[in-house]
Amino acid sequence: MENFIAYNPTTLHFGKNILTSLVTTLKEYGNRVMLIYGKGSVKKSGLYDRIMADLKTQGFEVCEYGGIKPNPVIGDVDAAAEIGRQQKVDVLLAVGGGSVIDSVKIISVTIPVDHGGWDFFTGKAKPVKAIPFIAIPTLAATGSEMNPFAVVSNHAEGLKAAFGGPLTFPKHSFLDPALTLTVPKNHTAYGIADLIAHCFEAWFGIGETSLTDRFVLSIIKEAMDYGPKLLDDLHNYEYRERIMFAATMALNGMTMYGRSTGDWGVHSTGHCLSLLYDVPHGASLTIVFPAWMRHFKGQIGNRIAQLGSGLFGEPLTADESIDRIEAFFKSLGCPIRLSDMNIPGDHRQPLFESMVHSKVNGGNVKMKEEDYKALIELYL
Amino acid sequence: MENFIAYNPTTLHFGKNILTSLVTTLKEYGNRVMLIYGKGSVKKSGLYDRIMADLKTQGFEVCEYGGIKPNPVIGDVDAAAEIGRQQKVDVLLAVGGGSVIDSVKIISVTIPVDHGGWDFFTGKAKPVKAIPFIAIPTLAATGSEMNPFAVVSNHAEGLKAAFGGPLTFPKHSFLDPALTLTVPKNHTAYGIADLIAHCFEAWFGIGETSLTDRFVLSIIKEAMDYGPKLLDDLHNYEYRERIMFAATMALNGMTMYGRSTGDWGVHSTGHCLSLLYDVPHGASLTIVFPAWMRHFKGQIGNRIAQLGSGLFGEPLTADESIDRIEAFFKSLGCPIRLSDMNIPGDHRQPLFESMVHSKVNGGNVKMKEEDYKALIELYL
Repeated sequence: MENFIAYNPTTLHFGKNILTSLVTTLKEYGNRVMLIYGKGSVKKSGLYDRIMADLKTQGFEVCEYGGIKPNPVIGDVDAAAEIGRQQKVDVLLAVGGGSVIDSVKIISVTIPVDHGGWDFFTGKAKPVKAIPFIAIPTLAATGSEMNPFAVVSNHAEGLKAAFGGPLTFPKHSFLDPALTLTVPKNHTAYGIADLIAHCFEAWFGIGETSLTDRFVLSIIKEAMDYGPKLLDDLHNYEYRERIMFAATMALNGMTMYGRSTGDWGVHSTGHCLSLLYDVPHGASLTIVFPAWMRHFKGQIGNRIAQLGSGLFGEPLTADESIDRIEAFFKSLGCPIRLSDMNIPGDHRQPLFESMVHSKVNGGNVKMKEEDYKALIELYL
Repeated sequence: MENFIAYNPTTLHFGKNILTSLVTTLKEYGNRVMLIYGKGSVKKSGLYDRIMADLKTQGFEVCEYGGIKPNPVIGDVDAAAEIGRQQKVDVLLAVGGGSVIDSVKIISVTIPVDHGGWDFFTGKAKPVKAIPFIAIPTLAATGSEMNPFAVVSNHAEGLKAAFGGPLTFPKHSFLDPALTLTVPKNHTAYGIADLIAHCFEAWFGIGETSLTDRFVLSIIKEAMDYGPKLLDDLHNYEYRERIMFAATMALNGMTMYGRSTGDWGVHSTGHCLSLLYDVPHGASLTIVFPAWMRHFKGQIGNRIAQLGSGLFGEPLTADESIDRIEAFFKSLGCPIRLSDMNIPGDHRQPLFESMVHSKVNGGNVKMKEEDYKALIELYL
């Protein structure tokens, strides 16, 4: 095992009608609340009205920022931070998918400073203070509700980057699986793929840690058992519950106990696809992961075979493992080639340039420019 | 799944030479440190001298309380709290096994008040403030280093009781598996049994939660794989590391996600054995668990069979599962009957009276006086 520090101060409230205790929790942080949400699904579902009514009945002063994009951008972060600053808000309430929660993490540390949020991603600034925030996820996917990480795009810079630190954990997250019952089939599938990919990134990191490996296999197997059932029965509460819980566990730190780093090379590669073609995050990962494993199987073949054998319950080679994993992603209805997304044109050069510009690399499996080229050919 | 709240603010520092960052962490809490330890093994091992030297070099003012008993008693808690109160300590440092860490949890909330620590166990008082404390476990067993629970005996009252709340989490715990290399074989085995028993108590609680069940099986299987190897090779760092990590995971909250309660009837029963005959905690559990499963198999037979089948990788009946689990405990060198402890006399009546007096019961599997009698016959 590698030395590690486990720290996760988020209080997770999970289950049916769990939002009934939201206002009591909010009150601990003050009276001026800022509600932040996405492109309108929370309005369509009635969740927005429900929360607003609760807040107003309880005498909170509420301001809001709506319109966070599915691949969130730094412009929204800065605009929302400006409102929060002017309104002197006490606490932020993120209602939506990972894009909203990620954005709110950066908004929370940008409100107290006099510069833009992007400076945290470039390392130009370090957060010193955060406005406390509470997350209400409406999608099971990123695990953002129980970790400090945020991924935000800056199109002017041509970058999609990650940031996170001790200040950017949600204080509380309220997870009611019923809030995910209306997520459409494709985004449900991308969420399942995303949580599995998070486990893969940990698996391919640095550190031999047998119990954590068992945890990682447990989470992936849960997703492989309940994911297909859920896609056949989207309104099934129990399946939504299993997947929502698995998604939180997949990136709350436990998959990293005993490792010094995850890999995250596939995520970095996938970010280029999202940046250039707005490919949904989970879809970018099912496109890149099988190709990445094929390209690097000379180096990590044993680890791939160990993963496949653990997941499918029989001894498999690396090649067989990759084929099975790819087939599973396909069975979810996820793309496994960029061509599955029907984006016309030859994308080799822009993809390559984006990977170079983003300095795409893994924490464990190192990538050079020739790897970029080979990888692109494998997932085109 | 049952609704649940996950909250664990302890920062866990795990690995080789991890104590090198102790003083920096301590400094955050102040300059007046109280060191609390047990019956002298930390002096024999040199750990006491090492920590004292570090603290004095760094200019800390240090007071101490030594002599916490393996089954810790409330008298030591109150005596230590009085010293801490007089010395106006800023932070407590628990160095030892679960008995020391458990005691320090209660000392931390007793120092700020003007009554004894036992009032927290009886519900007569609720803690309002805690002196921050840091744990350095020297034994892999109780998981006390990453949970808020304390079990302490009060011989005047004839009770061994549990308490814990949001204030009694360690702020930090530093786990260096090398500190456990000198734990003797019997106590190493009791620790392994203890961590497995913690998993069992969660398993037999209330709540059908498939992913958490996978986590629980993962932890037990890790202990069953590495436990026997460790007992054959007590100075093997890797095996110590695996068991120490598993012990922490077995009672840090994750085995309870999606459950409304664990059972803990076996622990309550075991506490009577410790109280009356000073049976080591882990040993009391290997004595009681097989008997408890046999007695209640009519009620929880499916769950016992599911446990055994999951652990041993083949379909087993409840009876076969119990036999295998008992055989495993025996293979560790743990007692599986009270008679294995060689305590002369007929213990039926005192055991029964102690169970009645302690109102022994499970959170899920309810026990009546006739169950006490039957259970005692099965484990005598």
